Amino acid sequence: MKIAIAQLNYLIGDFDGNVDKIIEFAEKAKDQSADIVVFGELAICGYPPRDFLEFDDFIKKAESSIERLKSASQGIAIVVGSPTVNPVVEGKDLFNSVYFIADGEVKHIQHKALLPTYDVFDEYRYFEPASEFNCLEYRGFRIALTVCEDIWNIGNENPLYKVCPLDILIKESPDFIINVSASPFSYSHAQERLKVLKANVDRYKVPIFYSNNVGAQTELIFDGGSVVISGNGKVHREMPYFKEAIECFDLSEVKKTDTEDFQPHDDIVEIHDAIVCGIKDYFGKLGFKKAILGLSGGIDSAVTAVLAQRALGKENVRVLLMPSQFSSDHSVNDAKKLAENLGIQFDIIKIESVYKSFMEHLAPHFEGMPFNVTEENIQARVRGTLLMSFSNKFGNILLNTSNKSEMAVGYGTLYGDLAGGISVLGDVYKTQVFDLAEYMNKDSEVIPINTITKPPSAELRPDQKDSDSLPDYDILDKILFEYIENRKGPNEIIELGYDEKLVKRILKMVNINEFKRYQTAPVLRVSTKAFGMGRRLPIVGKYLS
Amino acid sequence: MKIAIAQLNYLIGDFDGNVDKIIEFAEKAKDQSADIVVFGELAICGYPPRDFLEFDDFIKKAESSIERLKSASQGIAIVVGSPTVNPVVEGKDLFNSVYFIADGEVKHIQHKALLPTYDVFDEYRYFEPASEFNCLEYRGFRIALTVCEDIWNIGNENPLYKVCPLDILIKESPDFIINVSASPFSYSHAQERLKVLKANVDRYKVPIFYSNNVGAQTELIFDGGSVVISGNGKVHREMPYFKEAIECFDLSEVKKTDTEDFQPHDDIVEIHDAIVCGIKDYFGKLGFKKAILGLSGGIDSAVTAVLAQRALGKENVRVLLMPSQFSSDHSVNDAKKLAENLGIQFDIIKIESVYKSFMEHLAPHFEGMPFNVTEENIQARVRGTLLMSFSNKFGNILLNTSNKSEMAVGYGTLYGDLAGGISVLGDVYKTQVFDLAEYMNKDSEVIPINTITKPPSAELRPDQKDSDSLPDYDILDKILFEYIENRKGPNEIIELGYDEKLVKRILKMVNINEFKRYQTAPVLRVSTKAFGMGRRLPIVGKYLS
Repeated sequence: MKIAIAQLNYLIGDFDGNVDKIIEFAEKAKDQSADIVVFGELAICGYPPRDFLEFDDFIKKAESSIERLKSASQGIAIVVGSPTVNPVVEGKDLFNSVYFIADGEVKHIQHKALLPTYDVFDEYRYFEPASEFNCLEYRGFRIALTVCEDIWNIGNENPLYKVCPLDILIKESPDFIINVSASPFSYSHAQERLKVLKANVDRYKVPIFYSNNVGAQTELIFDGGSVVISGNGKVHREMPYFKEAIECFDLSEVKKTDTEDFQPHDDIVEIHDAIVCGIKDYFGKLGFKKAILGLSGGIDSAVTAVLAQRALGKENVRVLLMPSQFSSDHSVNDAKKLAENLGIQFDIIKIESVYKSFMEHLAPHFEGMPFNVTEENIQARVRGTLLMSFSNKFGNILLNTSNKSEMAVGYGTLYGDLAGGISVLGDVYKTQVFDLAEYMNKDSEVIPINTITKPPSAELRPDQKDSDSLPDYDILDKILFEYIENRKGPNEIIELGYDEKLVKRILKMVNINEFKRYQTAPVLRVSTKAFGMGRRLPIVGKYLS
Repeated sequence: MKIAIAQLNYLIGDFDGNVDKIIEFAEKAKDQSADIVVFGELAICGYPPRDFLEFDDFIKKAESSIERLKSASQGIAIVVGSPTVNPVVEGKDLFNSVYFIADGEVKHIQHKALLPTYDVFDEYRYFEPASEFNCLEYRGFRIALTVCEDIWNIGNENPLYKVCPLDILIKESPDFIINVSASPFSYSHAQERLKVLKANVDRYKVPIFYSNNVGAQTELIFDGGSVVISGNGKVHREMPYFKEAIECFDLSEVKKTDTEDFQPHDDIVEIHDAIVCGIKDYFGKLGFKKAILGLSGGIDSAVTAVLAQRALGKENVRVLLMPSQFSSDHSVNDAKKLAENLGIQFDIIKIESVYKSFMEHLAPHFEGMPFNVTEENIQARVRGTLLMSFSNKFGNILLNTSNKSEMAVGYGTLYGDLAGGISVLGDVYKTQVFDLAEYMNKDSEVIPINTITKPPSAELRPDQKDSDSLPDYDILDKILFEYIENRKGPNEIIELGYDEKLVKRILKMVNINEFKRYQTAPVLRVSTKAFGMGRRLPIVGKYLS
């Protein structure tokens, strides 16, 4: 028995394209004499399809895709995820299902029971949980089919759920387990995934073939990293991250695994690769090639530019240097040097006279009022408008360069530096941005060292420093992490030893700036709790604000 | 037995404020000799608290609020919604519950069973559904307590659910039913609510006391309209919309109801009142008083200005008229006239020279390239920047004036006319904007007639008209309604008799502009399907695009 895993990058709603790709890889699997080829969760329509699932037309397209796959299943069994209609009137209209298609027919359908409805997941919005679980027989083997989360409640110890599908399926003594997943990346996820897979095998003592989608879907990045675990709990193979791949495994070889084969883990390397993948797919899937961004000479825009150049190629990244009267010379020089290092096109546009033109019009209305954040924001918005003009004129998507620390506390200008089609660093804390810069410079100085070592500044007024209005990023990021990722309240954070006043001030800043985050671009998600779909908070409210 | 209903406006996360208000109204109910006073769903913390529910600290505050209410319950029973902790490890951590507090103790808690997880609702993200249902006895009466959606599955005929709480509770022969709700407004909702309440009484033959929250929570507007239905299915009383109120009912009087007392319904009047409420609460609850917006002379900004003036008072609304070289004289005159009619402060700032300053800087880069949407967008962004400067300098929140038709097809400039803290008309189709204008002018010409009768134009290039690039709004809005509200696919819409090419073009425009809507302000929701939280679609995808 040979089982191939095809970890592929699907385009949401592109039924023809997705099915073409599935058939192409089914043929490749046949060439490798596979008996079964396993694709991912909701591979037919792409994951997450979100409210498209509410359109009958969309579901009909999924159904006719299954028809196409029937004819492609001669000589090989295709295991693939698709939404299916719930024939029972009561309950949600759909199931999230995995199909087993062979010899021109659907041999088996298993629905998903555990429907993640937390963080970025909304599955119970659309799907009814499975209540029946059955193995299937194929070519003399008994197989347990599962979908993603269904293997994440081992022995019913996950407090979120009340059912453990494999505890039921195992009673039929399957020879192996197949899992089709769409499990999005975060920098701690790959290790957790291996742990969970091993824990399943510890309990059930049969091999698991786990196939995960790959590629980015707007903000969610799927890392692939499909896994085969032997019946004795060893990692027979962990497939590559962030790359489409197909590999074929002989069940008898899998059973004999003695040495483990998994990839080394490094948070920063994985964040780097994930973001490169995220940018690439955001552009590629939207049919765009070219990016634009503003280079300030600071570290955020520098790291963003490097990531963009690596994702899109140097010929597709263009930058604007837009110094004002408050910009230091070294900022322009650092930015120029970076653009030269990266081999990307740069232009310099001084913003002082546009800024002054605004101020002339505003002077009669602002008479007697001091320079404040208003004037700072105007500078940022002039830059935003210039960047968007290039975006509109040349078809470059503007990259947002704000980091997670800034976005958290609202240190940024709506429609100014918070503009952009996609937020590259919005889930990367400032301290992690420094780590990324160091990693980028590991072989040679890509990012000018001065950009890394100088004190961070927005340069929107004379001699401004981030540290004028924010605590040190070392402390800020730790407090933010406790609040955002760990969802600790003020007292719990203070108990960890942080200053009470500071904690309360920071939590308040986070909460009162929800309105800014509401209007910023989708954030490429690399942590367990990113701004956007996965973090839903009221704008109007009084809790900790 | 006297039952008071207090329909109140709560502030999310303001436990002290909410409990103060509940106690104040409990005292008022006592003054009216009420035995029981009924508040709303999750009244203690405000609805919807969203991910604040994931903070232990937040839940602890809810628990201590219940403690405070115990001491206030001497001489009167308080019925109030609050989250409670699920003591069972398996399943979600919380219940959405209604408390019955009397004589200094919690006499009864009933959890909610039907957890809306569709459109704007995410209840299954947080709450475990109830599995037990019991009536309680109080002062010789048996009472069935329910929370919101639990009365919306009459006889188990709602296809979404499998349980009908009242079918179980009715077996204990309650004397009456109490329902605490947080049911957001849409212009068809009040009638539907009465229908559902009557259908419950038709089935169970006992009176219902239904208490609904009132006031806006960011984009969601709660209309109050609490209802008492007699045991013979007559509307004993429908309380006012969009206003806090307390009314006390004698059960024996309720039973004798013979003439019905409900309010007349008019979609446009209700939309008008809902938006006024929405603006008022967005500002009031954020601690702001003053609004700013751009008046173009067109109908959208005119209607927005009238709504703002009615919500905030004329002294709190300020407008900018920002003509360009493409603006017609009548636009400025119409805008001025409107400002004068409304008695609001207006300033005129011509944008031509700021625009030219931008173009001078861009000229070397745009050489040989024709005027296109880039230059149009620059005008819109200059206006956005000017408005935001006033917003920043004077503390006025910028109102977004885009209507639902424009937002649907992407007819608007990100960071330009799509800027603003709250979208006033983003859930109102252009044809409805005209209806609103007519309604506003019913007694006298508030909006200059020319603003209403002239052909809509963005005036961003010479002689531009909306009809150059969009179909007539009469047709456009109908197609959009079928796609957005009715979730019909292209074939279904074409079958209704619309032109195939047009339908496909419009649906494509809607889908490819998801990225713009992602970055616009929260939209005050007045329909059954508004842009924002209730409509979740991928930005990157290929379905109908």
